[in-house]
Amino acid sequence: MNQYEYIVAQADEMKDRLTATRRDFHKYAEAGWMEIRTSSLIARKLADMGYEVLVGEQVCKRESRMGVPDEKALDARYETALSQGADPEYAPYMKGGMTGVIGILRCGEGPTVACRFDIDALGVYEDENDSHRPTHEQFASVHNGVMHACGHDGHATIGLGVAKILMGMKENLHGTVKLIFQPAEEGVRGAKAIVDNGNLDGVQYFLASHITDKAEDDPAVVIPGSYGSLATTKYDAFFQGVSAHAGGSPEKGKNVMLAVATAILNLYAIPRHSGGVTRMNVGKVIAGSGRNVIADSASMEIELRGETTEINQFVEDYAKSILESSAKMHGCTCELKLMGSAHSLTSDAVLIDRVRKVCEQDLKLPVAKMDSSKNGGSEDVSYMMNRVQEQGGQATFMRVLTKTSAPGHNRRFDFDESVLPNAVKIFCGVIYDILS
Amino acid sequence: MNQYEYIVAQADEMKDRLTATRRDFHKYAEAGWMEIRTSSLIARKLADMGYEVLVGEQVCKRESRMGVPDEKALDARYETALSQGADPEYAPYMKGGMTGVIGILRCGEGPTVACRFDIDALGVYEDENDSHRPTHEQFASVHNGVMHACGHDGHATIGLGVAKILMGMKENLHGTVKLIFQPAEEGVRGAKAIVDNGNLDGVQYFLASHITDKAEDDPAVVIPGSYGSLATTKYDAFFQGVSAHAGGSPEKGKNVMLAVATAILNLYAIPRHSGGVTRMNVGKVIAGSGRNVIADSASMEIELRGETTEINQFVEDYAKSILESSAKMHGCTCELKLMGSAHSLTSDAVLIDRVRKVCEQDLKLPVAKMDSSKNGGSEDVSYMMNRVQEQGGQATFMRVLTKTSAPGHNRRFDFDESVLPNAVKIFCGVIYDILS
Amino acid sequence: MNQYEYIVAQADEMKDRLTATRRDFHKYAEAGWMEIRTSSLIARKLADMGYEVLVGEQVCKRESRMGVPDEKALDARYETALSQGADPEYAPYMKGGMTGVIGILRCGEGPTVACRFDIDALGVYEDENDSHRPTHEQFASVHNGVMHACGHDGHATIGLGVAKILMGMKENLHGTVKLIFQPAEEGVRGAKAIVDNGNLDGVQYFLASHITDKAEDDPAVVIPGSYGSLATTKYDAFFQGVSAHAGGSPEKGKNVMLAVATAILNLYAIPRHSGGVTRMNVGKVIAGSGRNVIADSASMEIELRGETTEINQFVEDYAKSILESSAKMHGCTCELKLMGSAHSLTSDAVLIDRVRKVCEQDLKLPVAKMDSSKNGGSEDVSYMMNRVQEQGGQATFMRVLTKTSAPGHNRRFDFDESVLPNAVKIFCGVIYDILS
Amino acid sequence: MNQYEYIVAQADEMKDRLTATRRDFHKYAEAGWMEIRTSSLIARKLADMGYEVLVGEQVCKRESRMGVPDEKALDARYETALSQGADPEYAPYMKGGMTGVIGILRCGEGPTVACRFDIDALGVYEDENDSHRPTHEQFASVHNGVMHACGHDGHATIGLGVAKILMGMKENLHGTVKLIFQPAEEGVRGAKAIVDNGNLDGVQYFLASHITDKAEDDPAVVIPGSYGSLATTKYDAFFQGVSAHAGGSPEKGKNVMLAVATAILNLYAIPRHSGGVTRMNVGKVIAGSGRNVIADSASMEIELRGETTEINQFVEDYAKSILESSAKMHGCTCELKLMGSAHSLTSDAVLIDRVRKVCEQDLKLPVAKMDSSKNGGSEDVSYMMNRVQEQGGQATFMRVLTKTSAPGHNRRFDFDESVLPNAVKIFCGVIYDILS
Repeated sequence: MNQYEYIVAQADEMKDRLTATRRDFHKYAEAGWMEIRTSSLIARKLADMGYEVLVGEQVCKRESRMGVPDEKALDARYETALSQGADPEYAPYMKGGMTGVIGILRCGEGPTVACRFDIDALGVYEDENDSHRPTHEQFASVHNGVMHACGHDGHATIGLGVAKILMGMKENLHGTVKLIFQPAEEGVRGAKAIVDNGNLDGVQYFLASHITDKAEDDPAVVIPGSYGSLATTKYDAFFQGVSAHAGGSPEKGKNVMLAVATAILNLYAIPRHSGGVTRMNVGKVIAGSGRNVIADSASMEIELRGETTEINQFVEDYAKSILESSAKMHGCTCELKLMGSAHSLTSDAVLIDRVRKVCEQDLKLPVAKMDSSKNGGSEDVSYMMNRVQEQGGQATFMRVLTKTSAPGHNRRFDFDESVLPNAVKIFCGVIYDILS
Repeated sequence: MNQYEYIVAQADEMKDRLTATRRDFHKYAEAGWMEIRTSSLIARKLADMGYEVLVGEQVCKRESRMGVPDEKALDARYETALSQGADPEYAPYMKGGMTGVIGILRCGEGPTVACRFDIDALGVYEDENDSHRPTHEQFASVHNGVMHACGHDGHATIGLGVAKILMGMKENLHGTVKLIFQPAEEGVRGAKAIVDNGNLDGVQYFLASHITDKAEDDPAVVIPGSYGSLATTKYDAFFQGVSAHAGGSPEKGKNVMLAVATAILNLYAIPRHSGGVTRMNVGKVIAGSGRNVIADSASMEIELRGETTEINQFVEDYAKSILESSAKMHGCTCELKLMGSAHSLTSDAVLIDRVRKVCEQDLKLPVAKMDSSKNGGSEDVSYMMNRVQEQGGQATFMRVLTKTSAPGHNRRFDFDESVLPNAVKIFCGVIYDILS
Repeated sequence: MNQYEYIVAQADEMKDRLTATRRDFHKYAEAGWMEIRTSSLIARKLADMGYEVLVGEQVCKRESRMGVPDEKALDARYETALSQGADPEYAPYMKGGMTGVIGILRCGEGPTVACRFDIDALGVYEDENDSHRPTHEQFASVHNGVMHACGHDGHATIGLGVAKILMGMKENLHGTVKLIFQPAEEGVRGAKAIVDNGNLDGVQYFLASHITDKAEDDPAVVIPGSYGSLATTKYDAFFQGVSAHAGGSPEKGKNVMLAVATAILNLYAIPRHSGGVTRMNVGKVIAGSGRNVIADSASMEIELRGETTEINQFVEDYAKSILESSAKMHGCTCELKLMGSAHSLTSDAVLIDRVRKVCEQDLKLPVAKMDSSKNGGSEDVSYMMNRVQEQGGQATFMRVLTKTSAPGHNRRFDFDESVLPNAVKIFCGVIYDILS
Repeated sequence: MNQYEYIVAQADEMKDRLTATRRDFHKYAEAGWMEIRTSSLIARKLADMGYEVLVGEQVCKRESRMGVPDEKALDARYETALSQGADPEYAPYMKGGMTGVIGILRCGEGPTVACRFDIDALGVYEDENDSHRPTHEQFASVHNGVMHACGHDGHATIGLGVAKILMGMKENLHGTVKLIFQPAEEGVRGAKAIVDNGNLDGVQYFLASHITDKAEDDPAVVIPGSYGSLATTKYDAFFQGVSAHAGGSPEKGKNVMLAVATAILNLYAIPRHSGGVTRMNVGKVIAGSGRNVIADSASMEIELRGETTEINQFVEDYAKSILESSAKMHGCTCELKLMGSAHSLTSDAVLIDRVRKVCEQDLKLPVAKMDSSKNGGSEDVSYMMNRVQEQGGQATFMRVLTKTSAPGHNRRFDFDESVLPNAVKIFCGVIYDILS
């Protein structure tokens, strides 16, 4: 039995445990920066397997985190997490939104391979209808309005499966493996903080994947690369003006309503870019206090995208100019708070080829005909990939294929759990191929 | 002792009772369409005096009421009102926002004189500091966030004092007196419903007043007329579009954010009017659901004003055109809900002269040098005055003068209660002058 | 015969000469800063009468002039003016838009009285129909598109009549008379330059008038004062951006079209002012070069007004903020060129009373019942009045009444020339009253 | 000598005549719908060769023409064209903008092949510097501001060369050849009128080409297909409102300035489309008449584009909604005049292959490695191609390659005339391949 055969056998053997782990994560779904139970249990398991475990300040740079919930919500989550079985040793490191875990396996000389597994849930109300399998089989989220509707419960599970098998192959690996369990991928809020802490420095190879739907009769289990994910920046804008009685002395006000309206129209009117796709959206506005008062404050949720990081930067610079000038024009101020960001990403062809070869020749797994999927959304794994690539390393973002019951972010999302051992095999196989 | 002397003596004699009544109303302040305790007690007292009493459907035309709170809030108020001493016979008529009372005194042949007394409180948090007299003397509002900060507690009290004295003079009156206790003046929501019910039809004379601050050393007790109150219309606008993923398929949305921004800028850009003052305000906007979703719904609180009813109509027509076209432009719809309205008002010079003469010659009360106050705000008593005037009758809106502790609508508002017997004298004196 | 009788007799006697002079000015109508023939002939006549004459740099401060035509147009006018009988001695001082004349009569000790007579025509095409009296009687403008449609031909004539009579009364005057013949009143471009040159410094009394229509049967010849003229500022705005191919690389442009549209909507949305009337208008826009090019330049004609100088300043400051920010928002620039300005004005009550007394008692001329006319337009005589008033002097802007054939600025405007001797009498009478 | 060799020999032989013809067209450059000299001479030559010639109403459907100059300009061109050697027999058919020619060669049974050659010049001022070859060699445009800066002089010349050779091969062809000399391609104004007249009905094969720059050392003479040309629609919008005095009675106006500003901002804010590229531009606006007048009329030049005809339609529908609602909102009207339009286009792969084979194997001409060029602009040949393709036919739009001295539409544009015989060979070779 060669090492590839070992990987396959081990992964197939752990299938039921993977399913159970995934369902446990699903049931106790935790939103970004709140993954205290999830993170602490991952840390516990990695430690028990023998991994060097990084938590708390070692994972994310505190001030690089974006879109962190308020203290009160974080504290409430902490208390509840403990009552739901969070690991009491590791949980305290995660207080105040310092979630995420990195497991390190050092096997002597050789390159460093890092993998990213994202672990957070979404703000979605899970379907309570019995026809929704998680509800029927009683692993639906116990947290109303928080749901693993994007498969990150599976991603976290895959990471633990990979950890287990690699530890068993330790003697045959030459180099270092970093398994990064990332918080707050939804809203692209977490990856930058991990990169800013230096955790991707010195990494030569990088792998990540996302569970993706496929046709019923498609035998392929993986698309080995991705490109075309849009770079994005997300801001909250806060306008401040001066209130006044709208009938009595309108001239005494500094009316944020005019600033907001001017900003909205001009944001959508940012020029099209000949270099590629752009997007901008003002998704939410709350402005003013009462009918007969000149509005003195407003908040605005903004999302910007560009086909490349440069195009996104063009849009972002223009948007900032619009927001600032719209406010200034009416004697108001506008403060921006960065709520998320991601670069565009492109998998390296040579690593794509390696994944294809390992899967087809070594693991005997069917690979999709296309090398890369085009990803119309945004993914902050791009921060990690870009960091590796700018150091001369290789990175790929794969699609692990399975059947899903509904599109991502839908309240009826679920997936065929056979994807779990398959994904474990692919990660382990490629890592072994690199480090053998 | 002539009848004027009788009035003066009676009013002076009831001073303490007026103060007690005002403080009771103040303590149990009730917002517009919620004045169940207030209305039911007024009805009780009028009935006990011998008045013909109209309540419920007899007062306001149900569908002409504007800005009525939701059923749940109305029901809650009803229950609490009963526990606070609302009259159990009359309260049931007032359920569901059918508040207000009319007391009628028929004294044979002769003209009809109507008086308006408004009875509702405001959405203001009363000052809890002991330096605020109502707090110190323990008649501050027991309802957190509801306060008589505009003197309507005094207005209701004056009406009851007038009722009492007129009943005692019944033999000397020739004609009919209608005492209208109006709900929901704040937000100009109630008067139209009373007019629409025909309660001002056939009225030849109309009197109303508002408590107003004066200089410390000004002996005057009344300004006998008003003009220049702005006509106004208040709308809530509801925009409906279609949501879509802002990154994935922005073209599938119908974006209310664009409609709202277009409407805001154009509303403020409605032309100035050479005929007089105009005002427009978008005081509050809530739009959209999330950062990465094309916004599909929005609400907007709008207030329009004009120096005359015609100018206000110009502004209103223009605003409707803007709102409709802004929505249509983006494939959205915009529905308007009328939340309040008032005409401009002008007191009749001949009735102003009559008030002056009665006060100075008959009641020996000092009158302000100016005939009329300019009223920069809006008052829906204008509906009643206009109805009387368009039938050929005479109407005036007086200012009864006293010292106040803070501007109207302020949480520290209070007034010198000596205004109460003075106002009672003026109303009774003028009514007697007309009906004697 | 007293001096008032002398004035009346003299003015009546010169009636035909006044008419002839007015018609000569009418025929050779000259627009603002182009009044070379008009100015040079006035200077000639004043000099011939014996006045100390100021011309050229002595009248207007060169850099304070607003809305001066281009060099080429000024040169063309100069050449033509000479061929039309401009005075060859004085005309050279007026080259390059340095028009206007001041005649000074010094009569020893005593106060200084200044009078303003505006002399420029308008950009109006005079009616060529024979039913228009100037056409029928052959004194219509020989300059196509330039017409005395606002009566300044009459004003200049009145000034010369006043000059003539005062010189004849020289022995009976004690003080100084300054007769200011102002260029470029249309567009409110000229008065400030005269004030900035110090020509109103030390003036204690100031008189000016405008020919105004009255009812057929109204005997009054003058309204002795004015108030309520709107303060105003007029700007040309020039936007500069960067062009680009609209299809090929729209992101490379800096689009003035977006800046202009943002500015327009926000300018009209400048808040109403509780202190009084405001106005703003974007009367003309020319923007862009071709359909498929991102527009890189635009010009905009703007007019702002306020009921007081302060309110106009509020509007002006706000407008500048809007223009600057609208341009900056899109990476463009916006330069403003001041094209005209006027303050609000208010006649002094004591001088109004003096005019009334002189007219009614001394000159036996009927005066309008109202003291002051409300002037809804703008007048830059306000600069002169304000300068006199801020030094403690008295000023009034009168309406000299007559029948006109059409509203001012209309191509069929003409007036009953009997107003000319009447106005001469009033100016002379009041000046004598002050200086006797 | 086979027929391909005949074609090559003939084309090489006529090289000097092609150059002379091109330079004659260049010198007498005529803008769209004004190509009277050009059209009449083409008709003359086709007739002399023996072609059946269609002119005037036979070519373009009169009412389908877009962006036709005014009558006066057309008449002036007609007169001048005659003086410049226009053919006196054919020119009269072309009066009033009815330019364009179709030459038909019927060779018995067989398919119909149509070719499009566009013939109009641009509104560009040709460089008068002697370093510009047309200036130096004295064939620069004699019409100031009209220049063949896009190579259509060459296209017309190629068409005549093709006509000549095909007539010589008549015996060897089986089917029909239609040579369409199209007016007004610039601004995409002419093709639709030819299609609407039925001239592409029954056509099975369609060829067209454009002269395009290539690298100095690139031996290729043709790119055999194109795709990705943007669909486009061009409108002039005319806004009509009501003027009023901006100071005196602004409320009486219907202000097009507000309508125009609202339209501009919203046009640029039309949503991005997930299906592909969109563009919109307001390239030129002229609005209003004077500073103190509410603007009552405005014109706007608009250009819309979409990556497909459907996406362009989405943009066009949205733009119309914006324009209509922006006007209506302010009581104004907006009329649209269609000034040009084109579909997107895609060459048929099978015809591309055929061109490649004919060039490489039969004509021994090097073909570019890429099958298709992406064309970022717009071309109304798309109307013809779409008509042929929707009938089941095949069409291709080729790029004939040469060296140019400057980008298209530049005042220094010129090209290496060796492209002319090459293009003639390709057209003739492919037509022979089809009809042999």
